[in-house]
Amino acid sequence: MAGNLPDTALELRSLVTSGGTLELSLHEVPVPTPGPNEVLVRAQASPINPSDLGLLVASADMAKATVAGTPDRPVVTAPLGKGSLGALSARLDQSLPVGNEGAGTVVAAGSSDAAQALVGKTVAIAGGAMYSQYRAIDASGCLVLPDGTTARDGASSFVNPMTALGMTETMRREGHSGLVHTAAASNLGQMLVKLCQKDEIPLVNIVRKPEQEELLRSLGASHVLSSASPSFSTDLVEALKATSATLAFDAIGGGPLASQILNGMEEAANAKAGEYSRYGSSVHKQVYIYGALDTSPTVLTRGFGMAWGVGGWLLTPFLQSVGGETFGRLRARVAAELTTTFASRYTREVSLADMLRPDAFNEYVKRATGEKFLVTPHAST
Amino acid sequence: MAGNLPDTALELRSLVTSGGTLELSLHEVPVPTPGPNEVLVRAQASPINPSDLGLLVASADMAKATVAGTPDRPVVTAPLGKGSLGALSARLDQSLPVGNEGAGTVVAAGSSDAAQALVGKTVAIAGGAMYSQYRAIDASGCLVLPDGTTARDGASSFVNPMTALGMTETMRREGHSGLVHTAAASNLGQMLVKLCQKDEIPLVNIVRKPEQEELLRSLGASHVLSSASPSFSTDLVEALKATSATLAFDAIGGGPLASQILNGMEEAANAKAGEYSRYGSSVHKQVYIYGALDTSPTVLTRGFGMAWGVGGWLLTPFLQSVGGETFGRLRARVAAELTTTFASRYTREVSLADMLRPDAFNEYVKRATGEKFLVTPHAST
Repeated sequence: MAGNLPDTALELRSLVTSGGTLELSLHEVPVPTPGPNEVLVRAQASPINPSDLGLLVASADMAKATVAGTPDRPVVTAPLGKGSLGALSARLDQSLPVGNEGAGTVVAAGSSDAAQALVGKTVAIAGGAMYSQYRAIDASGCLVLPDGTTARDGASSFVNPMTALGMTETMRREGHSGLVHTAAASNLGQMLVKLCQKDEIPLVNIVRKPEQEELLRSLGASHVLSSASPSFSTDLVEALKATSATLAFDAIGGGPLASQILNGMEEAANAKAGEYSRYGSSVHKQVYIYGALDTSPTVLTRGFGMAWGVGGWLLTPFLQSVGGETFGRLRARVAAELTTTFASRYTREVSLADMLRPDAFNEYVKRATGEKFLVTPHAST
Repeated sequence: MAGNLPDTALELRSLVTSGGTLELSLHEVPVPTPGPNEVLVRAQASPINPSDLGLLVASADMAKATVAGTPDRPVVTAPLGKGSLGALSARLDQSLPVGNEGAGTVVAAGSSDAAQALVGKTVAIAGGAMYSQYRAIDASGCLVLPDGTTARDGASSFVNPMTALGMTETMRREGHSGLVHTAAASNLGQMLVKLCQKDEIPLVNIVRKPEQEELLRSLGASHVLSSASPSFSTDLVEALKATSATLAFDAIGGGPLASQILNGMEEAANAKAGEYSRYGSSVHKQVYIYGALDTSPTVLTRGFGMAWGVGGWLLTPFLQSVGGETFGRLRARVAAELTTTFASRYTREVSLADMLRPDAFNEYVKRATGEKFLVTPHAST
């Protein structure tokens, strides 16, 4: 064990009460002692991803949030959305730690060789409870960052890079040869542009605002469409013909977009097909919904034949399904390309206490494209 | 070759013109000479399945149909639905034969042993163009009916029996242990009730009218729900809890039903789950849409977590995907249980010319549950 470790440290907690209130606060928790195969990581940098917000703010109306407590220990209280308690019943009245991923330095280790080998290393981890100052984790869960890579560089080395790789891996496994991505100007979307470029995978990027087109074009993306454009439908079919993309990953979820993509794929497939089939083309067209930027219903206008699928896609079950060898290969690639293909850009840094101030949470709950927060749990506030 | 074969025979044809008109008529076509491995089947009985109607009447408005020609050779003309020409572009101005399946007697055969062995046998076939008096087909495509089985018994031995078996086979292959079926009082639905009973597969039957509940209960179905009932939502969740069914086959397609089923499955899964997951249950819930009784959009209100899929399901690609051995096993089972599990009931018999009379087509285009037409191509009219 390294010396000079405190007995307790701060951890951010999210609590949904059965009274219908969200409460965010910092708890003083014991610094854990690592088990035989565990290491203790001093957490230095952790992103706020869209996938963290579900657990963090539940469905609370943050516009109505009030902040009490002290500057060092703010306590945020916000009312839950109407009718949302039912869906949250399994987490009621439990104070939950938050934060999917981050990076830091191994400051203590259990007795095993694997754990001891990590002492002093900068590692990236993804095990939840990362909005904390210290985190004990199994040695096998650590991705050792290459020399010269900082915790800040490695903070986002799991969720977005593995999701981007999960998308191209899913494409290959399911027999597709090109991709469509929506809300494509996101941090993840920018990563996917770079990854597809490097791997020569045709990619159709769909953004929602004209100004986002420029951003992706500046990264070298060839097919960038705005769903706000009056020519979107025809642009989409042209891009689908050019790329033969038959698999889409959709972060939006609600509304007609998934259906438009499937219908566009069908039109592109039929433009190449010879024979008439009353069941539509035999080309399988798939949309995976992996986000819910629009929580309204998904509306499928079925003009796309019978060879189609729409479904949910989530990183963790995908990684569980591919097995250890593939998982290791993907993680090694992330480490090797962490400051190139998989580099993240942050627009703001906050401490744990900063996260609980209105000028921060009013921003990060917006999930605004181009904005990305980095949490630095040891920064003084 | 058997003697006494005519040179020409009748075949029903469907034509969609680029002018926007459907034309149904009988053509005098040459009786084919079977190739070395083919047999010639004198077609005696063929059902009108819902899956035949797409090709037969396209999207024409049969309520506006007019009939010309002679009593022996009626010619039906009907206007196409507005805006439907686009989807039909690949079949414009081609006179197409119709009829997915049927049964008859082998009256001639090519030189191969396999073909010769079938002479005189009563066989069931499924190769399209069955609303014809004679059909040449590869010997391997024939299902020899057991002794004592008539062509009428075997007319529907492919589409509905293989679809029912395809559903239970898909269930096993994809790791589910129970089924949901909609529009469950159909001929196919009744078959599925009998099949699931025999194979001890839990089955939730959803019908649209209270009077259809009785029919399925009389066959011994345990879970029969009417979507018209005010207690449908709660009945559905109870049935899903009781059966743990996580795979649905939906013949309706449009509207909220697929979504209701997925949400019900999620509620049933969560009732058993312990731990809270903000992504919903990890139980995969699947709806396959195999029909389009409602052509309006499918509306998915996504309250069912991330482990879900909705997609098209079609018999032919399914059978292609399972391979020859499984295909053979399923067909052999159909033959063995043709007059029990897989028996069909017909409410009316029509000749080829009868099919083109208003009192017939006004009925069969309704796809009314409980009504089923049998075409007898050699009947005099």
